[in-house]
Amino acid sequence: MVSRDPSPGERAVARCNQLGVPPFSDETGLLYRPWLGPGFVATVEAVAQWMREAGMSVREDAAANLIGRYEGTTPDAPALLFGSHLDSVRDGGRYDGMLGVIAAIEVVAGFHAHGERFPFAIEIIGFGDEEGSRFPVTMLTTRAVAGVLEEHDPNAAFAELCDANGINVQQALAGMGLTPRGMMTARRRREDVLAYVEAHIEQGPVLEAEGRALGVVSGIAAQRRFEIRLHGQAGHAGTMAMSLRRDALTAASEMVLAVDRVASEAQGAEGLVATVGSLRPWPGVVNVVPGDVTFTLDVRAGTERQRDDAVEAIITAMGDIAARRSIELDLIPRENLAATPCDSRLLGLMERAVAQVTGQSARVLVSGAGHDAMIMARLAPMVMLFIRCEKGISHNPAEAVLPADVDDTIAALTAFVRLFAGNPELSQRRNPA
Amino acid sequence: MVSRDPSPGERAVARCNQLGVPPFSDETGLLYRPWLGPGFVATVEAVAQWMREAGMSVREDAAANLIGRYEGTTPDAPALLFGSHLDSVRDGGRYDGMLGVIAAIEVVAGFHAHGERFPFAIEIIGFGDEEGSRFPVTMLTTRAVAGVLEEHDPNAAFAELCDANGINVQQALAGMGLTPRGMMTARRRREDVLAYVEAHIEQGPVLEAEGRALGVVSGIAAQRRFEIRLHGQAGHAGTMAMSLRRDALTAASEMVLAVDRVASEAQGAEGLVATVGSLRPWPGVVNVVPGDVTFTLDVRAGTERQRDDAVEAIITAMGDIAARRSIELDLIPRENLAATPCDSRLLGLMERAVAQVTGQSARVLVSGAGHDAMIMARLAPMVMLFIRCEKGISHNPAEAVLPADVDDTIAALTAFVRLFAGNPELSQRRNPA
Repeated sequence: MVSRDPSPGERAVARCNQLGVPPFSDETGLLYRPWLGPGFVATVEAVAQWMREAGMSVREDAAANLIGRYEGTTPDAPALLFGSHLDSVRDGGRYDGMLGVIAAIEVVAGFHAHGERFPFAIEIIGFGDEEGSRFPVTMLTTRAVAGVLEEHDPNAAFAELCDANGINVQQALAGMGLTPRGMMTARRRREDVLAYVEAHIEQGPVLEAEGRALGVVSGIAAQRRFEIRLHGQAGHAGTMAMSLRRDALTAASEMVLAVDRVASEAQGAEGLVATVGSLRPWPGVVNVVPGDVTFTLDVRAGTERQRDDAVEAIITAMGDIAARRSIELDLIPRENLAATPCDSRLLGLMERAVAQVTGQSARVLVSGAGHDAMIMARLAPMVMLFIRCEKGISHNPAEAVLPADVDDTIAALTAFVRLFAGNPELSQRRNPA
Repeated sequence: MVSRDPSPGERAVARCNQLGVPPFSDETGLLYRPWLGPGFVATVEAVAQWMREAGMSVREDAAANLIGRYEGTTPDAPALLFGSHLDSVRDGGRYDGMLGVIAAIEVVAGFHAHGERFPFAIEIIGFGDEEGSRFPVTMLTTRAVAGVLEEHDPNAAFAELCDANGINVQQALAGMGLTPRGMMTARRRREDVLAYVEAHIEQGPVLEAEGRALGVVSGIAAQRRFEIRLHGQAGHAGTMAMSLRRDALTAASEMVLAVDRVASEAQGAEGLVATVGSLRPWPGVVNVVPGDVTFTLDVRAGTERQRDDAVEAIITAMGDIAARRSIELDLIPRENLAATPCDSRLLGLMERAVAQVTGQSARVLVSGAGHDAMIMARLAPMVMLFIRCEKGISHNPAEAVLPADVDDTIAALTAFVRLFAGNPELSQRRNPA
């Protein structure tokens, strides 16, 4: 066996693995790295060191985000931003978020090794709270950088939100010498940021199913959520004749299948998914015909139009089912998020970069999950690169990536930077908003 | 408005209503009358007084059952037994159980008013624990009378079972001067009991739907219960493409509809009902495709054959659905109860009695619910009469009956006793077992 240096992808995976255990996790035996916890602080320190080794200057901003900067050919040049998040869910995987940061460091390390610089700086941001696994709110730190935190929460009411130990955001920030209002000063000027690029594991099974290492994201899905309440008639399971039943659970079952059918059969709606994740019959005991059922509906698609067409078809089907079965139907809207399309020019460059690396035309897909990029699109043109992950599993210790795929990721991002540099329209300083 | 005496049915309904509140309920604002509680003791006293007023001698047996006896033309004659239960579920209705006892008292009161006696005695038993609403066991008192308590629980292990306040059966019995082992002496001799007749609200919607006051029960349904566990693949609701899902909830939904279809479409299976009452998806949150689902199945029919044919069809359908959707299926048997047919000769007499009263041929139906009669059939030939109840609602304060229907009940039971007396084969002393 011949020993050799690890490839950039191997090193990136090894670093993510290293960060999967204490002191970089707040728990032993599982990965849990909430924003501003001891594991988070240790992680910032370790990643900062890797950034420095890659030739970057390092700082923490007013929201405790970690920012590494690789200067351009001129000082104070505007920056191409790479980023993703450093925090994890409880009992999470090692690559969700972290791999996007670590892979970007490898990209810069590659440029640094050859002294390759661009007319723009490259910065890498490790965001603090994408998962919202500590406080009941997400992406405060991303909003701060994008300059939309004040719009989101003008009174900084988030300061009072508590974690499971009763520590609020204000107290947690104070431990780092920071304040909730001060977080807002982390905002970047529009003229200092050329674009935002995020590499992230797919967290879905599509790339694996198609045998591809990489995918280019066309945008982050539009999403709507509903709570549906059905009201029929409870009855004794032994005495309520079948023909006289108004069983809320059989009605709900037909509706679940209608949701599945509408989303599965829609033609040409890229990224369309519809899910009933929670369903509770009442009273929910073996010998009573369920009189009530409450369930959730989550519908996402690449565009609002595709999503809303599906929602309309589902609601129509539900109405028909409820009427036929004499069930009362309440449909309560719970969430309505617009799509966040990636910048079409950046998307084109990323497709070319992926095609160069993989030798085949790039797969373009919708991101059904939310990411920091969704917020950063408010600040600058945005594009995302997806990395195949095993069985699409994420938010789970079984999360896994192939080191060879991470090599492809690093190569594609490297190619992207060069293509970006070759496109003055994108890589020259933008005007203030 | 001319004041008049209440009809027997009106009086019976009024008495049930009177017993629906403290001191006959252990709680204020709702009816809860558990076995051996203060409300139960007060109820025994009140019902005993009504029995005496109807010309009966009264005793309590070794299981704290209340027994009234209306002597026949000779002393120590064997008895025709009427019965039902005095206890209630928590927040129960006023007629479940109680009406069968109170209506029977009106039947005897009618005979007593005219000095009408038969070659047999008539006894009315108010059983103590049909509902099992206090201790986690049911029908100990009925088993004691039927002589099957020892077979059911040879070591009287039930003595140690505790109620919500930590009082066990032994302690509760001791408060009445009784013992668990002593309960077994409440058993009646086969030669002393000619037949057992129970009138009970239907607890189902069939009679109301068909515009009938009364129904004759052909038997108590055979029953099987299962727990079904489905194992698919959990996934992110936004990233798991529809075509790649192994959603345990869509599979469960198809199965729920298969259960409904098999039970609804079965031809000639009287009393066939099949119910999914409990269903729990896991993890059960809005943004995760459910990886696992656990649900219950309850199937009942007039005969084991009808029930088992339906179970087989359901299991076949579930297997097909699971295979097609790549879902693992575990089917765990939880209960298997044989049918308890009513005695065909008594059934014939009850049909004639109902036809005499209502002027139309009697509706014969299966009881999907269990009753004291199920146990008493072990001691003597048994038949049941069902009384229409509003919307089939039971185990609920909304339980309601029409006083006119109770008049019909009392008239039918009265006619039944006379027909029974005219049938020496049934009304003469039986041989010891």
